[in-house]
Amino acid sequence: MVKEKVKVGIMGFGTVGTGTYKILTDNFEEIEKQVGAPIIVEKVLVKNLSKERDVSISEELLTINSDDILENPDIDIVVEVMGGEKPAYDYIKKALENGKHVVTANKELLAKKGDTLFKIADSKGLAIEFEASVCGGVPIIRAFKRTLCTDKVNKIMGIVNGTTNYILTKMADEGSEYNEALKEAQGNGYAETDPTADVEGYDAAYKMAILASIGFHMPVDINKVSIEGISGIDKRDIEYGKDLGWVIKLIGIAQEIDGKVEVGVSPVMLPAEHQMAKVNGVNNAVFVNSDSIGELMFYGPGAGQMPTGNSIVSDIAEIAKQLVLGNKMLSNCSFDKPKEYMEEIYASYYIRLNVINKPGVFAKIASVFGNFDVSLESVLQKKTEGDSAEIVLITSKVNGIDFRKSIESLKALDVVNEVSSVIRVEGNGND
Amino acid sequence: MVKEKVKVGIMGFGTVGTGTYKILTDNFEEIEKQVGAPIIVEKVLVKNLSKERDVSISEELLTINSDDILENPDIDIVVEVMGGEKPAYDYIKKALENGKHVVTANKELLAKKGDTLFKIADSKGLAIEFEASVCGGVPIIRAFKRTLCTDKVNKIMGIVNGTTNYILTKMADEGSEYNEALKEAQGNGYAETDPTADVEGYDAAYKMAILASIGFHMPVDINKVSIEGISGIDKRDIEYGKDLGWVIKLIGIAQEIDGKVEVGVSPVMLPAEHQMAKVNGVNNAVFVNSDSIGELMFYGPGAGQMPTGNSIVSDIAEIAKQLVLGNKMLSNCSFDKPKEYMEEIYASYYIRLNVINKPGVFAKIASVFGNFDVSLESVLQKKTEGDSAEIVLITSKVNGIDFRKSIESLKALDVVNEVSSVIRVEGNGND
Repeated sequence: MVKEKVKVGIMGFGTVGTGTYKILTDNFEEIEKQVGAPIIVEKVLVKNLSKERDVSISEELLTINSDDILENPDIDIVVEVMGGEKPAYDYIKKALENGKHVVTANKELLAKKGDTLFKIADSKGLAIEFEASVCGGVPIIRAFKRTLCTDKVNKIMGIVNGTTNYILTKMADEGSEYNEALKEAQGNGYAETDPTADVEGYDAAYKMAILASIGFHMPVDINKVSIEGISGIDKRDIEYGKDLGWVIKLIGIAQEIDGKVEVGVSPVMLPAEHQMAKVNGVNNAVFVNSDSIGELMFYGPGAGQMPTGNSIVSDIAEIAKQLVLGNKMLSNCSFDKPKEYMEEIYASYYIRLNVINKPGVFAKIASVFGNFDVSLESVLQKKTEGDSAEIVLITSKVNGIDFRKSIESLKALDVVNEVSSVIRVEGNGND
Repeated sequence: MVKEKVKVGIMGFGTVGTGTYKILTDNFEEIEKQVGAPIIVEKVLVKNLSKERDVSISEELLTINSDDILENPDIDIVVEVMGGEKPAYDYIKKALENGKHVVTANKELLAKKGDTLFKIADSKGLAIEFEASVCGGVPIIRAFKRTLCTDKVNKIMGIVNGTTNYILTKMADEGSEYNEALKEAQGNGYAETDPTADVEGYDAAYKMAILASIGFHMPVDINKVSIEGISGIDKRDIEYGKDLGWVIKLIGIAQEIDGKVEVGVSPVMLPAEHQMAKVNGVNNAVFVNSDSIGELMFYGPGAGQMPTGNSIVSDIAEIAKQLVLGNKMLSNCSFDKPKEYMEEIYASYYIRLNVINKPGVFAKIASVFGNFDVSLESVLQKKTEGDSAEIVLITSKVNGIDFRKSIESLKALDVVNEVSSVIRVEGNGND
């Protein structure tokens, strides 16, 4: 059935919903030309009908009743931009059951229930598009689904959270402490009053689960994603990193080695000359290593009303182009069976220790690492304060079990006052 | 008509053709899973049947007769990877006339005849895909056609030629002269024996014409693309640029201002902290400024057998997915009427002069610029040698007519021995 008009219902009218509406109205004619038919917003689900908005919209379009969209036979595409797991899951499920295509920006929902929703959609020949769920305006989902799909992806590294990248950039550029930088981010609207989801890495973990799932063609279990945020980053580690030619970023890593995958988010030391190390402020970037292409990087705004709005609109256009031709939808995500997760990660680490400042300390520390087969690339004494000293160590690539055991043994050493920091190192030629 | 197998004919078996064949065979099963049907190479057009190849292929697949592909009723998709205008144009035209979809890597042909070919294809409901024609393995064409199509593109800046970027990187990092760096590039296989197409900017111009056409939705006249290469770059300009915090890159610029477009390729001074300034060696990058998204950058390998091969294969998959579903093809490029080209460019410039070293010279030079309303942002004396001196000037953004007149007047000044260099400046906050 060929469509002469494509009708859209928008569920949620916050930042992204408003941006979506603005682009669909402001670029109406150009989008019609690209798609081959007009795209018409039929209904918008809001929480409060009388709220003041920063966009002019006819009152007749607004509704507080989700069924005005989900049960509306005129609507072809449901745009879900409410966020959160509930009631978004129920709404999307109902939309699919009623034969509607779905565009969503909901990273949490896709990370937790994506596989189930894709299966429902595929069984009914419906599309679920989700470009806006990862990296706002950066077309990274389409790059995976349409270009990297014919290649074999080995590793994905993402700066997928703008808030934490802003904070780390501030700390690096201005020597701020974490708490100062966080306050500044909150003042600028780059961080929420409760910043937990961003600074503790949960937001990034959802996004990495989505990227890993389309990169490795498998449903990723969000509970298997290791998560460490940036609230423990000390400005001294940023300074010492600088001395070593390294930069600290909150990096999402997804990799497949010998058929086993790792998906995780943590602070990482990167060489300053690495493309990802140069991504500053609230910007996002995704770096991909694959067999045929080699290294790709996608860079751009990770959030914002208009960038994320454009991702939503481009997804609507993607579906609408097929509807206009009376085409069947391409299948959503051809997931294979889940691959096994790595039991242990092999990685290099930066370690900062506070030790008693006396002869023979280096030797004791080195022998602990020797006992667990952990090789050291360098050992640097950074600072002496009275009877204590700060030592920075860089390990070669090591097995996680051996590494953790060596850290435990270090803690037990009488000459070690504290293991102050442990930060993964990537891109230093060891991988 | 639903396809259970998709058959491909490859025309040309050089670097890219071989890469395409390797990926289609090595990733056969994964691609079949993604596409929903196997993709089978039916015939490969070669120049010489008995040539030794670095890939194992059945002799029965090889042919020296183009009609074995173009007139072969079994073949659904013709992959043209021969390059050059002739006979590629005739082959592609014949393929379309015979109802075959086309995938091509041919930048020269698309830049010169793309509009005609797209029209033929659209009139017959056929697809022409060309991801491999610009930036090898970087999925930039799809980003424009599928994501930026709903946005309004204002400016595209591209490092789209790896050879020249390699040479400029060498000159910057090692202080080499142009000729030394070129020789090294030739020694490493990064530059041809006759490097003209690369170093004089023609290759980049073709690619920018393609990007501008899909960015601004218009056929771009290759004769309207201004072209300046890097053979005139002196290592002193690179050094002086460094002192100013700038880097010289061969940049393709396409921009639309008030409905008029500029498309050109030239050496450009960029601030060292600009994302594009950090793209080194043979890598490519495309930077896009658009209304909704803001700034995006795509980075990756601009050439090479496997990266470019993957772009071809992803294009084949794109068409095959629709064939498998019995779908109609999306229209190729919804070009509007050509927009007008700017008569004059507004830009800032770096100028290096050799002048007579005596009092009053600065004043004479400054008054020439004053006469033509050209403001100077800075005037720096770089070097004195006997009775001559080297002066570097940076202008504000100026009108091209005024700028050229002021340069002509400078040349006529008795105190000016030579206008040694004129290099456009971008990204310095004036635009």
